[in-house]
Amino acid sequence: MDYYNTTNTDNDKIMITVHSDSENPLYQQIYEQIKTKIMRGDYPEGFRLISTRQLSKELCVGRNTVESAYAQLCLEGYVKSMKRSGFIVNNVSDDNPHASNKMRGNGCLQASAQRLSRQSIPGYSSNNPRQYDYDFQYGSLDPSLFPYSQWRRLTSEILSSNEAQNINYYNNIQGELNLRIEIMKYLGESRGVLCNPEQIILCSGTRYALEIICKLFPKERRTAAFEEPGYDGSRIVFENNGYKINPIPLRKEGVDIEILANGSPGLVYITPSHQFPTGLVMPIQHRTNLLDWAVQTKSVIIEDDYDSEYRYHSRPIPSLQSIDRHKRVIYLGTFSKSLAPGLRMSYMILPEWMLAQYHKLFSRYPSTVSWLQQQVMSLYMARGYWQRHLRKGCLKNKKKYDILLQAIQDQFGNRVQIHNHNAGLHILLEFNNGEQQEYLEEKAGQYNVKVYPTLPFWHQKENCPKNEVLLGFSNLSETQIREGIHRLNLAWF
Amino acid sequence: MDYYNTTNTDNDKIMITVHSDSENPLYQQIYEQIKTKIMRGDYPEGFRLISTRQLSKELCVGRNTVESAYAQLCLEGYVKSMKRSGFIVNNVSDDNPHASNKMRGNGCLQASAQRLSRQSIPGYSSNNPRQYDYDFQYGSLDPSLFPYSQWRRLTSEILSSNEAQNINYYNNIQGELNLRIEIMKYLGESRGVLCNPEQIILCSGTRYALEIICKLFPKERRTAAFEEPGYDGSRIVFENNGYKINPIPLRKEGVDIEILANGSPGLVYITPSHQFPTGLVMPIQHRTNLLDWAVQTKSVIIEDDYDSEYRYHSRPIPSLQSIDRHKRVIYLGTFSKSLAPGLRMSYMILPEWMLAQYHKLFSRYPSTVSWLQQQVMSLYMARGYWQRHLRKGCLKNKKKYDILLQAIQDQFGNRVQIHNHNAGLHILLEFNNGEQQEYLEEKAGQYNVKVYPTLPFWHQKENCPKNEVLLGFSNLSETQIREGIHRLNLAWF
Repeated sequence: MDYYNTTNTDNDKIMITVHSDSENPLYQQIYEQIKTKIMRGDYPEGFRLISTRQLSKELCVGRNTVESAYAQLCLEGYVKSMKRSGFIVNNVSDDNPHASNKMRGNGCLQASAQRLSRQSIPGYSSNNPRQYDYDFQYGSLDPSLFPYSQWRRLTSEILSSNEAQNINYYNNIQGELNLRIEIMKYLGESRGVLCNPEQIILCSGTRYALEIICKLFPKERRTAAFEEPGYDGSRIVFENNGYKINPIPLRKEGVDIEILANGSPGLVYITPSHQFPTGLVMPIQHRTNLLDWAVQTKSVIIEDDYDSEYRYHSRPIPSLQSIDRHKRVIYLGTFSKSLAPGLRMSYMILPEWMLAQYHKLFSRYPSTVSWLQQQVMSLYMARGYWQRHLRKGCLKNKKKYDILLQAIQDQFGNRVQIHNHNAGLHILLEFNNGEQQEYLEEKAGQYNVKVYPTLPFWHQKENCPKNEVLLGFSNLSETQIREGIHRLNLAWF
Repeated sequence: MDYYNTTNTDNDKIMITVHSDSENPLYQQIYEQIKTKIMRGDYPEGFRLISTRQLSKELCVGRNTVESAYAQLCLEGYVKSMKRSGFIVNNVSDDNPHASNKMRGNGCLQASAQRLSRQSIPGYSSNNPRQYDYDFQYGSLDPSLFPYSQWRRLTSEILSSNEAQNINYYNNIQGELNLRIEIMKYLGESRGVLCNPEQIILCSGTRYALEIICKLFPKERRTAAFEEPGYDGSRIVFENNGYKINPIPLRKEGVDIEILANGSPGLVYITPSHQFPTGLVMPIQHRTNLLDWAVQTKSVIIEDDYDSEYRYHSRPIPSLQSIDRHKRVIYLGTFSKSLAPGLRMSYMILPEWMLAQYHKLFSRYPSTVSWLQQQVMSLYMARGYWQRHLRKGCLKNKKKYDILLQAIQDQFGNRVQIHNHNAGLHILLEFNNGEQQEYLEEKAGQYNVKVYPTLPFWHQKENCPKNEVLLGFSNLSETQIREGIHRLNLAWF
C-alpha cells in the first residue's frame, strides 16, 4: 500500500491523501476529498486551491489526474477557475445550494453535468458516486490482471511498423482478418465453435452486436423470446428496436421449451453455459431440444457466451453453436469479461445464410472497433499471451470464488442458499427467511457494503423473488471478499 | 523509396519485392505478388513457399506481415498449410477453378472469404482488390500525417499511470469527461459550437451516432429529409431504422426550403459547411431560414460537420449549431477526417431537451469507444498536439488541393468544371461535353487510375447528372496527384 500525502506547510487542513491501490481512480480520490473539505467548510468561499502543478508534484501523480479532479469540481460548481488566480472555492452554503451552479465561463459548467459526468452502467461500475468499503459489483475486473506492459509493448510495435499506415484507412468492416482468424482458432479450441472468418464480426460490445442482429429480421417477425430472469442490458436493445419481448420462465434445465413453443417463433436470446443471473447450465438434452425447436420453427437462437472463460471445478461446457448442425445459432462472445471492459471489443458469429442480409444492410457501416486495438489484440493472441492470461485469470478468480463461498458458509451458514455453478464472476444469494432485496441492500449500505438487487433482470417485475441479491467478486481482493462478507454478516444477521 | 528484394538463390522466380512507401500495405504487396506467380504458373502445384520466418528476414519486414499475406493466400485457396511442410501451392488450373476452394482443415478456409476478408467501405478504401497506380479515393488520409510516435508515447504514458486500472471498468457511457471537455473547448473555439460536456456523446463513427439519433424519435415521426445528392453512408442508417427518406433537391445555397416545408416535418440531415458531395456552402441567410423552419415545425436538423477542419483560402464558417438559439440542431463531428479513420472516434452533441430521451433509451449501453484510446486522445488534445496536427494537416492538404486544381486547369482546360469551395478532401469534376460516369470510370481504369461515380449519392438515381465524377486527394502525394491527372488526360481526352 502506497500512501502519498501533501506536505503543504501553510495549512494542515488542505492535506490530501491518495491511495494507489484503491479501486477508486486517483482523480476521484482527490476530487472526493476536496469536495468534502469544501462542504465541511475547511475550504471556505474564496479559498484558493493549491495549483494543479504543485499538487501533482506533491502527490507524485500525473498533472492530468489533478486537472481531471479540478475540472470535475469546477463542472459541479464547487470551485471556479479564475484567470491567473487558479481555482477559487465558490459559495456553497446550504441556504443557496445552486448559487454556484449558475456560473459559466472560465470553463465552469452547469452542475447538472455532475450526474452525467459519472454516469455509467448502473450497478456495474466503480464510478458510482457513493463509494463503499466493499462493493460486490459485477462487470469490473481484477485490476491486477490486465497486461499493462504487454499491451504497451505491442501497441508500440504496431505503431512502429510499416503496417501502422493502415490507421489512415477505413479498414475491414467486419474487423481485421488476422484478428478474426485468431478468434476462430481460439473459439474452435476452447468452445468447439465451428466457423470461418467470414462469419465473424468484431463489435464494440454486445449491445452493438445486438443492434445489428435486431435489424436482420423482417418487421413482421419482431418478437424476441427472453430468459426470465435474464440480462436486462441485452433486453433493452430489442426493446429499442421495436421488438416485443416474450419472457420465458426458467426451469431447472433452462428456458421452458413448452412455453417457448407456444409463443410465436423468431428469435430467442439465451445464456446456456452460465445463465445470467441464476448460473444455471443447460444440459445437453435440453440443448438438443431447443435446437430441434429452432429447426422446426425456423427460429434463431442467440447464444450469449459472455463469461465462458471462467469455469471452476469442472470442465468447460462446449457451446450450443458447436452442436448446431442446422445453422440456427448466432454466437456472441466478448473480451470484456476475459480481458478488459474498457477495450470495448466483442465479436459475433453469424450463420452463413445470414451473411447476405448482413452485407445488404451493413456494407456501408465501417467497423466500430479501432484498427490499432484490433492489431494489438491480434498480436496478443498470436503470440500466446492470451492463453496464458486466461489461465492466470481463471486461477485467480477461482481462488476468489472459493474464498467467497467458504466465507458465506462460515458466516451465514444455512440461512442462505448460494446459486452458482462453479463458474463466472458472480453468485446469487437466496435468503431462507425471506428477507427482502430492498432491506438487504439498505442494511448492507448502512455497513458501507454494496450488494445488488435482481429486480432489473426481470421483465415481469412481479415474478421476481424478493429474497435474493447478486454479488460480483472479481473486482475485490481476497481479503476484501472475506472482510466484506464479515461486514454483511453484521449487517444482515 | 526503399526497395527490399529477396535474395533467394534457389530460384530466381520466387523473388519478391516490397515497397515501403507504397499505399498498399506490405502484407498486401507480398500477397499480390505470390498470387500472381501462382496464377502465372511460376509457382506450380506442390511448390513450397519460402518459410514465413525466412521471408520476413529477407524482406526486413515483420513476421506478422508475412503471416498475414500467407493466411490470406490460404484463405483464398491458393496455398494450403501443411503440418511440418509449411505452405504448399494448390492446383489452381483454369479448368478447375474451384478445386482448391473446397479444401478446409489445416487452417484453409473457403475461398468465398476472399470477398469479405477485404471488404470495406466501397469506393472509400485502399483495400480494394484491384490496385491502381493512382487511386483518387475519398476517406483515406495522408499516411505521413498521423502522429505515430506521439500516439505511442501517450499510450505508454496512460498504461504506465495509476489511471490505467480504469480499463478494468465499464466507464462513462457518454465517453470520458476529460475528453468531452477537450472536445467542448476545441469546438467552441474552432466552430463556435455552444455546449456543455453533458451534451457530448463519444461515438465510434458517424453511423453509430445516427443509429442512436434514429431511435430518439417516435415511430410516427420516422421520415427523414435528406440532401439530394447527399452522403449515402448516412442515408442507409435511416433506412435501416425504418425511416422513409424524403430527398430534398439542392439549390445554389443548399437544400430547397420550400420543398422541405412541403414535406412532413421531423428530421433533416445536412452538411451545411461543405455539402457532400457538391462542396456547396450554405450562406447565413439560408441557415437562418432553415432554423426558422425547424422552430416553426418543431423539426430537428442534423448538422454533419464532417470535414470542417479543412478550409483553404477563406476563413472557417461557423457551424449552424453556433447560431441555433432554439436548440433545434444535433451536431456531428469526427476524428476520421482530421486524425485517422482507423481510430473509429467521432462525437455528437445533442440539444439539452433530447438528453432525457437519450438516457431513457441508452443508459444501459456502454460507450463503444475504447477507454484507452479516449484517454490518449484526451492527452493529445490537452497538450496542444491536436492543434498543431490540424494546422499541419490543413497546410498539407491545401497544398495538394492547389496542385490538383492547377493540374486540372493545365491539363483539362475548359473541358471541365471543378465543384468545390476551397475546402475538404475531395472535388467534383463536371464534364462540359456530357461524358458519362461509366465511360469516365472505365476509361480511367484502363489507364490504371481510379475515379469515383457520384451515382451512389443520389436517392433518386434518375436525377443524377451523368457527367461528373468524384476525386479524393488526401491519400495521394503531390507528385501522384500531378501524374494521376496527367494520366487521366490521356485516358479521357
